[in-house]
Amino acid sequence: MAGATAAPGDTRNSRDPAARAAGVAALSAAFGNRVVTSQAVREQHGNTLTWIPNQPPDAVIYPQSTEDVQRIVRICAEHDLPIIPFGVGSSLEGHVNAPEGGVSIDFRDMNKVLTVHAEDLDCVVQPGITRKALNEQLRDSGLFFPIDPGADASLGGMAATRCSGTNAVRYGTMKDNVLSLKVVLANGEVIDTARRAKKTSAGYDLTRLMIGAEGTLGVITQLTLKLSGIPEAISGGICPFPSVEACCNTAIHTIQSGIPIARIELLDALQVRAVNLHSKLGLPETPMLFLEFHGTDASVAEQSQRFGEIAAEFGGGPFTWTTRPEERTRLWEARHHAAMSCLALRPGSALVATDVCVPISRLADCVTETQADIAASRLLAPIVGHIGDGNFHLSLLVDTKDADEVARAKALSERLVERALAMDGTCTGEHGVGQGKMKYLLAEHGPAALAAMAAIKTALDPQNLMNPGKIVAI
Amino acid sequence: MAGATAAPGDTRNSRDPAARAAGVAALSAAFGNRVVTSQAVREQHGNTLTWIPNQPPDAVIYPQSTEDVQRIVRICAEHDLPIIPFGVGSSLEGHVNAPEGGVSIDFRDMNKVLTVHAEDLDCVVQPGITRKALNEQLRDSGLFFPIDPGADASLGGMAATRCSGTNAVRYGTMKDNVLSLKVVLANGEVIDTARRAKKTSAGYDLTRLMIGAEGTLGVITQLTLKLSGIPEAISGGICPFPSVEACCNTAIHTIQSGIPIARIELLDALQVRAVNLHSKLGLPETPMLFLEFHGTDASVAEQSQRFGEIAAEFGGGPFTWTTRPEERTRLWEARHHAAMSCLALRPGSALVATDVCVPISRLADCVTETQADIAASRLLAPIVGHIGDGNFHLSLLVDTKDADEVARAKALSERLVERALAMDGTCTGEHGVGQGKMKYLLAEHGPAALAAMAAIKTALDPQNLMNPGKIVAI
Repeated sequence: MAGATAAPGDTRNSRDPAARAAGVAALSAAFGNRVVTSQAVREQHGNTLTWIPNQPPDAVIYPQSTEDVQRIVRICAEHDLPIIPFGVGSSLEGHVNAPEGGVSIDFRDMNKVLTVHAEDLDCVVQPGITRKALNEQLRDSGLFFPIDPGADASLGGMAATRCSGTNAVRYGTMKDNVLSLKVVLANGEVIDTARRAKKTSAGYDLTRLMIGAEGTLGVITQLTLKLSGIPEAISGGICPFPSVEACCNTAIHTIQSGIPIARIELLDALQVRAVNLHSKLGLPETPMLFLEFHGTDASVAEQSQRFGEIAAEFGGGPFTWTTRPEERTRLWEARHHAAMSCLALRPGSALVATDVCVPISRLADCVTETQADIAASRLLAPIVGHIGDGNFHLSLLVDTKDADEVARAKALSERLVERALAMDGTCTGEHGVGQGKMKYLLAEHGPAALAAMAAIKTALDPQNLMNPGKIVAI
Repeated sequence: MAGATAAPGDTRNSRDPAARAAGVAALSAAFGNRVVTSQAVREQHGNTLTWIPNQPPDAVIYPQSTEDVQRIVRICAEHDLPIIPFGVGSSLEGHVNAPEGGVSIDFRDMNKVLTVHAEDLDCVVQPGITRKALNEQLRDSGLFFPIDPGADASLGGMAATRCSGTNAVRYGTMKDNVLSLKVVLANGEVIDTARRAKKTSAGYDLTRLMIGAEGTLGVITQLTLKLSGIPEAISGGICPFPSVEACCNTAIHTIQSGIPIARIELLDALQVRAVNLHSKLGLPETPMLFLEFHGTDASVAEQSQRFGEIAAEFGGGPFTWTTRPEERTRLWEARHHAAMSCLALRPGSALVATDVCVPISRLADCVTETQADIAASRLLAPIVGHIGDGNFHLSLLVDTKDADEVARAKALSERLVERALAMDGTCTGEHGVGQGKMKYLLAEHGPAALAAMAAIKTALDPQNLMNPGKIVAI
């Protein structure tokens, strides 16, 4: 219960434990058995996917409507009980941890598609729906929601972290695919951040302000999403290259030449080896690009052919591609299993992901220097990259019981962020700040921009109720 | 000089005239003849493009660097002298008026392309450069900046109003085409809103917050813009239709079917008549779509052909298209001359533009009801629409000396906004709020969202120095 556990880094007793306990009691009185305080459920709602310690909330609550959330926020405000929105818990930077205690709002029961406006290419959904469930329900409309972060994340969480994934190079990130949000603010008021019109110049862009705010400015209770037509034809392919640099140059020229590539994914040689170990694919263990093109039969054939020509100019190939679904799946198997296969390189280790993003012209340097740093650090870390966006991930394979190794892995991560920032990049391309990346924001944004963020946070959440201890400290 | 003129609606004397005069004197002392206070120059910097009265600033200043702007802001803060950023003065809602007096910061001398990163498809520019000058300078790189609002606006102004225009349906609006901004805040600090990486999840989206803020949260002194490859092939065409509804249905099905159309513009029958009067084109005086497709030779041919088939399904045609530049220009002549040609319908009248945007499924109803309203109001108002986005403009042709007619035109504009809002639309798709649309924001956003905007404004500009009297009153 409130005030009980306080792990290292936990500051929950900075909030009056008695007030928090009273808050949980008030929530229980209002919501009955939709408030859960068992240790197991609370720990499930702290983040456990990295080396960030689990910091469970004081309670977990399951709202069924925006009005429920509004009532929760008002009770929490009265008792100074922090509020942490929770989707499926797939975030990677401690976003759902509760360092100051509080209540985790789990959107499990708010997982419906409310309306599909097929003519307008949009739909209205609740935040708890996952991207796979959404696309399952959209299938008959001929439309789909294109953002694919890998994990079967909730749409609320995807918006909150401004996530993206493998096809951002064509479809953009969450910021480009949300028309409007319904948000409960810290003062208990409900706002819609925009109308359903496809564009607007009517005042400050509250939609984009809430996207990527990680629940620190309000709780998202509904989303209006832009949809895309399911492409008539999809071609997929893979292409080996002599070097990461050749991969990057091919990506740059492909994009410059206007080929509307849907996905372009890099696997480094070690990642390919991991996949071979895991899936016995027998791929050549060199850097490799995985491609997908969307369009008509004629246009995907043309795109694929032109890509193959560009790849050959940079020494890549042979480029193998197909439009047949089962063959595409087979070709892309290595990419689909990339994360899982890493553990085959070192069974029993923990996988910790990094997430820098740099201008694409600097990507080859950034990856190559990082590979040298990994070797010098005596660490094992395959690399996958959303190369069209300049975003890449190390899968650090770490024995978390080996303090020296953990220290080397953390030091490597720090240097990676410093390297990316020196190249005009960002510490997080798509995973978000959470707790894990807070320490880098000063270097990334500078004191004045960070102060502006803090001023906005203070203006909208003066009591610091909304997911405190994430993004900016106030 | 400060405090001199006070037109109707002018509240300049709410700011201490003596302090303002002292502020102008301090600017003159610091910047010499780069501060101008002549009546003609001041009036040029008030807005005069609509029926909003001209409210000139107390002075006009021409900075040459971000440091200049920083110094200006600090002097203005000391003397409570408002700050109004100025590009080329093409805004349509009184954005550059100075209702509380102040200094107009004219970016005439900050009009350079600073860097082109061709590999990254981005460039860094100063805010005073216009879109035509920018594209002229980019031509040799094979890249272009796609946003085209019609007017040869400055990039700073385009970002400030979150503008878009004819090819937003493919390339998005300013919010989608800016990577980062350098901004001088009201406290005199300079921030960069983001790094040059193509995407980021590192904290609040200050870039998107500044885009569309119309200078009320800070002064933009530099922009990093996303560029696109100049398409290998462009086809353009025109297609007459039996009704506005047929145009809308064709647009909906074209977009749903995934044709990556670059421009799709509606002219109503009256607008076509205006063009015929102006340019003797002899077009059939029916609703008409103007199209443009970007891609390879093969893909624009395929897109054009598929569009023609969809148009025919809805009774449209014949669809005439070409990839030859001079023929494209000829076909598109009617669209290019749309605004100018309106005055041929009523020589001597003033042209006042409206700017609602609705979900595309409601567009036909919104246009048709509005046409009936125009007729019932005994007004003349041709319509052009960025139909792919659900955004359309009336060109209200008004004798501004006829008070009754002006009253009828204003009442029509009000009903148009109410109609759009009732259809889940917005009062402004791309022109911005300025002074002209402030009165609609409460109805569009509701009190809680408007209060959130005001809280952000107060947090970042507690002294209300930055373009006061625009967007939100604090």
